[in-house]
Amino acid sequence: MREVAIIGVGMTKFGKFLDKSIKDLGQEAIWKSIHDTGIDPKQIQAAYVGNGLAGVITGQEGVRGQVILRHAGFSDIAIVNVEGACASSTIALREGMIAVGAGVYDTVLCLGVEKMFCYDTSRTLFALSTDTDIETMGGIGFTFVAKYAMDMRKCMEKYGWTQEHFAIVAAKNKYNGSLNPFAQYQEPMTVEEILNSRVVAYPLTLYMCSSPADGAAAVIICARKSAHKYTSKPIITIGACEISSIHLPNFQAKTPGDLDFEAYELPVKAAYEKAGVGPQDIEVAEVHDAMSPAELRGYIVLGFCKGEEIPAWLNQRKTFLRGDLPVNPSGGLAARGHPVGATGLAQISELVWQLRGEAGARQVLGRTGKGPRIALAQNAGGFIEGEPAVSMCTILKR
Amino acid sequence: MREVAIIGVGMTKFGKFLDKSIKDLGQEAIWKSIHDTGIDPKQIQAAYVGNGLAGVITGQEGVRGQVILRHAGFSDIAIVNVEGACASSTIALREGMIAVGAGVYDTVLCLGVEKMFCYDTSRTLFALSTDTDIETMGGIGFTFVAKYAMDMRKCMEKYGWTQEHFAIVAAKNKYNGSLNPFAQYQEPMTVEEILNSRVVAYPLTLYMCSSPADGAAAVIICARKSAHKYTSKPIITIGACEISSIHLPNFQAKTPGDLDFEAYELPVKAAYEKAGVGPQDIEVAEVHDAMSPAELRGYIVLGFCKGEEIPAWLNQRKTFLRGDLPVNPSGGLAARGHPVGATGLAQISELVWQLRGEAGARQVLGRTGKGPRIALAQNAGGFIEGEPAVSMCTILKR
Repeated sequence: MREVAIIGVGMTKFGKFLDKSIKDLGQEAIWKSIHDTGIDPKQIQAAYVGNGLAGVITGQEGVRGQVILRHAGFSDIAIVNVEGACASSTIALREGMIAVGAGVYDTVLCLGVEKMFCYDTSRTLFALSTDTDIETMGGIGFTFVAKYAMDMRKCMEKYGWTQEHFAIVAAKNKYNGSLNPFAQYQEPMTVEEILNSRVVAYPLTLYMCSSPADGAAAVIICARKSAHKYTSKPIITIGACEISSIHLPNFQAKTPGDLDFEAYELPVKAAYEKAGVGPQDIEVAEVHDAMSPAELRGYIVLGFCKGEEIPAWLNQRKTFLRGDLPVNPSGGLAARGHPVGATGLAQISELVWQLRGEAGARQVLGRTGKGPRIALAQNAGGFIEGEPAVSMCTILKR
Repeated sequence: MREVAIIGVGMTKFGKFLDKSIKDLGQEAIWKSIHDTGIDPKQIQAAYVGNGLAGVITGQEGVRGQVILRHAGFSDIAIVNVEGACASSTIALREGMIAVGAGVYDTVLCLGVEKMFCYDTSRTLFALSTDTDIETMGGIGFTFVAKYAMDMRKCMEKYGWTQEHFAIVAAKNKYNGSLNPFAQYQEPMTVEEILNSRVVAYPLTLYMCSSPADGAAAVIICARKSAHKYTSKPIITIGACEISSIHLPNFQAKTPGDLDFEAYELPVKAAYEKAGVGPQDIEVAEVHDAMSPAELRGYIVLGFCKGEEIPAWLNQRKTFLRGDLPVNPSGGLAARGHPVGATGLAQISELVWQLRGEAGARQVLGRTGKGPRIALAQNAGGFIEGEPAVSMCTILKR
């Protein structure tokens, strides 16, 4: 496969936009990414469009990408719609990367778009269930939040994490989000405010949780070797974009209550190997913190540190904006907002801006102080039997 | 890209199965394709799953493929869900082919699945609208059937086709379907019965129209050069699987009422070029006849003959089962049934059986009388501004 590069990115602000449809949101991100690249839109040969929920929420079940791309003024472009819950648009990036890598296309637009606010919030809740037979129709009502809460309680017991640690990481992300003009929430928040907000599912309080949002993010990719033809901006190479699905732990080999992060680790290990880097090389990361505390599990999964080391890490502010290894400089899902199908490419957009030195007030400095050169995005979507239905890891290099 | 081959296929019967979910249907097709191949299922590294309507109809919006594959007993397999209305599962084949071609995977399962019958038929109708803002919410109510009817009326005027010609092609397909154990309708029908059935949208009568169905079809693919490792059956090479989207005619260059089939022709031309064959080489074809008469447009689009020649072609029974160039030996969409997301791979399954000489009573003989060696599937999905949202063409070779 040829090496593939990102030559442009674009995002809408994330938030509650009752007057905007998936067409409006998609169009804005698409054209921002085109202007960011400086490419003639006629040179874009294909589009991979990730969306998670539009069928149930908006009624736009079929050919979502075609409807959006046509609205945005396109014709004669190969369009493939992909879905993988919260990982939908990372899958769009991966499929686009494979097609460009294989030489099927030279330039591809990858789009993530989601519209979660509508007149009927039950639609949003219904759309978010993973195995509908069991969760919704069956009435078991095991939600994402409950799953995250259970995982975090296990971590408290095993690693000595406390609810305050969870509030510290949430406060870090709220602060980062306050510097991000694309974030849904741009207000910093104290550890006390977060701890004192209402309990959603112990140990998670309201301000630790990601929130539904409307939004879109787009990325334009091409063959690495011809990237200079399309843009004058720094070229970001996709070192790896790996995926795994429905990996289940070997229950017979475990003690009940054991923590098992293998499903999250698999694509991370594959990505490190493919990109030829290790945890020690990562200078900035976006971690899928659908609940802020889950970011801490991310540190373990990504090989940054051991679970027991995390209280000290937080104390030393290692993953804060000015720390050795900033995580979620965008604010993560709880501050930037979580428009399911757009989140994957929002992570990628943030990392591209960081790698280019274009992240403004939230710019991280990297090891050398001259800006980061290697970045990582970790993402996951859906739950089946308590494990992520999709698990992904992307590594980018300047 | 490496050459990619089909090493196994499997299908459910198509029909109305109120007691079967998308999980049940998917599982059956998957395991049939595994048994057909003779492969160890653990060797399947990834799955591309095409589905068009499950979000709105069944409520299973997210991670459909993961839910189905898990139900079928799989774990640890990369899964990507794709969507393109009636072309959904041909897109699954194409994306799988690209991933295998690029060397990302060696063996991939491609699945198409659809569940259209449920307790509330309004869901099925709602799910089928293409641009929801305009068609459903906007209340314009321009349906697929109306679009097909308008196109056929233009053809009647331009090429001298009559309603009887349409009934002849429908009767041909009903006869073929009567020989197909997978078909939803297995009763032959006379030209008179078809002409006298109630008018749905002139010139289309009831028995010219495809019908909603539940069903699934699966195909297992691998690198051509290692195909012999997995199966002892004849190996079918994918010569091409091409796609185009939202191709709009240049209205300024046309007279109002002009027929323009360019959107259908684009992937056909690309597929012929890529596979290194032409219309004269095709020995059997499956054509996307969501309304049987649209098969006749297919003859033009595929370069088989000119529009004016079609009445004579039908008279000479050229595309009948024992004709020079059999089209829709499976019965096509009107007899086999049209479970939207499964139809693309049902076409492919039929052609694989034909190329292997396994099609039983509906086996076509090919030019040499020893069975066909080159086959073509034409498919399209959705409508935007009167043109197909997705248009595809696949060429297979024994």
